[in-house]
Amino acid sequence: MDVYISGTGMTKFGKSKDSLEKMMANAAALALEEAQLERVDAIYIGVMNVEEFVGDSNFATFLADTLGLSGIPSTRVETASSTGAGAFQTAFYAVTSGHMKNVLVLAGEKMTHLPTAKTTRILSEVIDRSERRYGTTMPALAAMIAQKYAQEFNLSLTMLENILAQVAIKNHSNGSINPYAQFRKVITKGDYLKSQIVSFPLRRYDCAPITDGAAAIVLTSEPTDVKVSGIGHATDTSAVRHRASLTSFNSTKEAALKAYAMAQLNPSDIQFGEVHDAFTPFEIIGTEDLGFFPPGEGWKALEEGATQLKGRLPINPSGGLKSRGHPIGASGLAQLVEIVCQLKGEAGEERQLERAEIGLAQSIGGLGNNNFVTILERSDRRRIMKEGWRLDYQPELKVSKKATNLPPPESVGILETFTILYATQEGFRSPLALGFVKTKTGDRVMACNPDYHSPKVLTMGKKVSLKMKEGLYVFEKLTLWNRLKRRFKSPQKSQPQSKP
Amino acid sequence: MDVYISGTGMTKFGKSKDSLEKMMANAAALALEEAQLERVDAIYIGVMNVEEFVGDSNFATFLADTLGLSGIPSTRVETASSTGAGAFQTAFYAVTSGHMKNVLVLAGEKMTHLPTAKTTRILSEVIDRSERRYGTTMPALAAMIAQKYAQEFNLSLTMLENILAQVAIKNHSNGSINPYAQFRKVITKGDYLKSQIVSFPLRRYDCAPITDGAAAIVLTSEPTDVKVSGIGHATDTSAVRHRASLTSFNSTKEAALKAYAMAQLNPSDIQFGEVHDAFTPFEIIGTEDLGFFPPGEGWKALEEGATQLKGRLPINPSGGLKSRGHPIGASGLAQLVEIVCQLKGEAGEERQLERAEIGLAQSIGGLGNNNFVTILERSDRRRIMKEGWRLDYQPELKVSKKATNLPPPESVGILETFTILYATQEGFRSPLALGFVKTKTGDRVMACNPDYHSPKVLTMGKKVSLKMKEGLYVFEKLTLWNRLKRRFKSPQKSQPQSKP
Repeated sequence: MDVYISGTGMTKFGKSKDSLEKMMANAAALALEEAQLERVDAIYIGVMNVEEFVGDSNFATFLADTLGLSGIPSTRVETASSTGAGAFQTAFYAVTSGHMKNVLVLAGEKMTHLPTAKTTRILSEVIDRSERRYGTTMPALAAMIAQKYAQEFNLSLTMLENILAQVAIKNHSNGSINPYAQFRKVITKGDYLKSQIVSFPLRRYDCAPITDGAAAIVLTSEPTDVKVSGIGHATDTSAVRHRASLTSFNSTKEAALKAYAMAQLNPSDIQFGEVHDAFTPFEIIGTEDLGFFPPGEGWKALEEGATQLKGRLPINPSGGLKSRGHPIGASGLAQLVEIVCQLKGEAGEERQLERAEIGLAQSIGGLGNNNFVTILERSDRRRIMKEGWRLDYQPELKVSKKATNLPPPESVGILETFTILYATQEGFRSPLALGFVKTKTGDRVMACNPDYHSPKVLTMGKKVSLKMKEGLYVFEKLTLWNRLKRRFKSPQKSQPQSKP
Repeated sequence: MDVYISGTGMTKFGKSKDSLEKMMANAAALALEEAQLERVDAIYIGVMNVEEFVGDSNFATFLADTLGLSGIPSTRVETASSTGAGAFQTAFYAVTSGHMKNVLVLAGEKMTHLPTAKTTRILSEVIDRSERRYGTTMPALAAMIAQKYAQEFNLSLTMLENILAQVAIKNHSNGSINPYAQFRKVITKGDYLKSQIVSFPLRRYDCAPITDGAAAIVLTSEPTDVKVSGIGHATDTSAVRHRASLTSFNSTKEAALKAYAMAQLNPSDIQFGEVHDAFTPFEIIGTEDLGFFPPGEGWKALEEGATQLKGRLPINPSGGLKSRGHPIGASGLAQLVEIVCQLKGEAGEERQLERAEIGLAQSIGGLGNNNFVTILERSDRRRIMKEGWRLDYQPELKVSKKATNLPPPESVGILETFTILYATQEGFRSPLALGFVKTKTGDRVMACNPDYHSPKVLTMGKKVSLKMKEGLYVFEKLTLWNRLKRRFKSPQKSQPQSKP
């Protein structure tokens, strides 16, 4: 059974005085009004961490009651930062099954009321425990991925900086004309360069902000002007270091494969996209993973202006997570609200895209390990179905593997990528150097060093020593002095001591 | 498309040294082995509050990875204490939609590692904020409901005590022969009477314990020996005091209506049930809400032995939440594992039911406001479909209403029900008297009084005074002294003061 969209709604994103339930009720009211419904068959609620951000549990029930819809089935769905997309796809199955006719999907998050270090700590809980205990944050992992991307595709630090700045500038420009955006201001390269470094090389303008907001969509089995054409969902390893590739996300590729196959559409059919730019490098990687551009060439398309509002494949016409804001649970659904808005030609004179018959949204859960791809389409679009349609998207799915041989307490390896994290979470020293070290066995370990305060002293691809200190691997540059220390150290010290 | 069950698994419930993910992985391995599957199309994870119990987020991803199923779509579903049933029903839609063939439903909770007062605080977060801030706990609300039930159906305190004891004794007896149960011991009336009062009149033996555990089920579109016949889900008001009835749950009735209609079965067709006995009075109320017995007569059926293992309608052959244990997220799914076990005749010589072709499970989320009913059936059962099948279950659905006129800061009302809570949550004085007071406008307010330490001083149905203190209503008995105080108090004091 086909599934359509009969109503959408969202609050202005930003710092809000409203409670989470009030924001969500406001978004729901708009969507229900547009759908001309007073009741629905079920509600799917997307909130990532209402327990720690707000201190509530049993939130699906509370929301149904707040909406005046007490009695109606209400279920909470959560997939980390892709929660809004997760709730949408869960609701999709309920409607397409034929068991439900009209379903409300409602997603939101309230975050701005807590101190930033606490919010950072809560957000860091999506990171695999084994990497989180190093004090790693989401921006830190994104920064390490950005550095690796630059190295893999031979971009100098200045080039990388320029590319990331362009993502931020483009998305702020789009956001500046979006009435729902948190930041309605254009930024210049100068503004970008002046912004604080969160985790080298990522600046504040590379990271989506902390935001309050809510979004709502009504799904229905009755034909409307917007149809759900394809959905896809996939996970990836919990720990980032277990992945074969650090510069692309398998979970996006696998989700996209499913969505394209279901929609019988190819990447070249997509006219515009909302791509999860929680960090600017993720927009570049996203456009490659989705098959819009070849691996390592997303940044070129950006530089050529292809992804601009007036480009041939506009990306994040809403301003993206970067400029519209990122209330975690809501973002995946807000992307879809934007796609619907564009498909219906309701984005306003300045922001409305010329070609808007098929749009795609990609939402990232956690550090790229619970991703969704959703394709929406105008129902009146004439599909020129070719005989023997064939998917021409064949992404390389690199097989992940877990470290099988952990290095001994004292060892050496190659510093594959690193970051200097300045905005540490509650309970961790700042700055903090974090890196992935590739060992002789080909395994990757996370390591830290709180004594390196500048990115200038570290080089990717160089040998480093690894030592276990208080259960954490600490990496150190192999300077002449360190090498000598290692060589002349008494051999007993590197052996486990037997008890006296 | 019909949906079947191809595998089940669960851990022994109780205090476990295993981590949450290990328990869940063990349960999943058993279910996948039985289903003879190495991969599935999707995973639905049920955990209620992994954020606060374990300190993790993005748990659906982590679990998929732990299972060695990284890549496969994994979504977390949550509906408070019915989470396991919620995950099951969500997965049901995915399979019945035809988009997925084999889906793993996996639910669990890890609770025993925290101090009890902290666990109680976390569990209390499922209660509506307006009632939670009084220090109310789940046992306290259940106790107030038990008292009200006794009053409504003219049961003396001794009779009530005897009924509740019988539920506990029956379920402990069943659990004593269930290898998966937390408490494998029979208890006597003497044991029951010796057990500590948690919240008057509920004793420790009236409350499901704090438990670690996990359960798993594989759903499939390929016919197997057990079929999902009917599912139903409904919510109710977030606040308990907004309900028209305190002695039955609309959410169970509405969920049951849907499940019976879908299965084309009547309550009289059900041969055995797993009924959410997080508190002993809830088993009695549950059997009435499900249409097994008329309102106010569930306790008679219990006394007659109807719900015993050898009775005509065995309830909680597993031992129920009471004796099998209640790892919150897992319980709703563990009930279904038991139903499947009985349907397949695999419950073992002692516990296997004679008639086990159709079983029903009812799961309660929060304080009766996110409830599920699921009916499973043997696929080989010969259905004698009557011409013009008709649902003969017509429960009274009492319309809830929110208080519209809050009483003034000083007022009087009727003490509708009360409890003395001894096992308070973190940050609250013990003991604490809590009650619902019905005001002149017919509205119900929650009120407290930390100075009443014994249930003997309070009487249901008597007039009490209400005063607002630090934002909470405090109730006081209208003794002669209190009445005199009220009469001779200077009138200004009861009026809001204008600023000097």
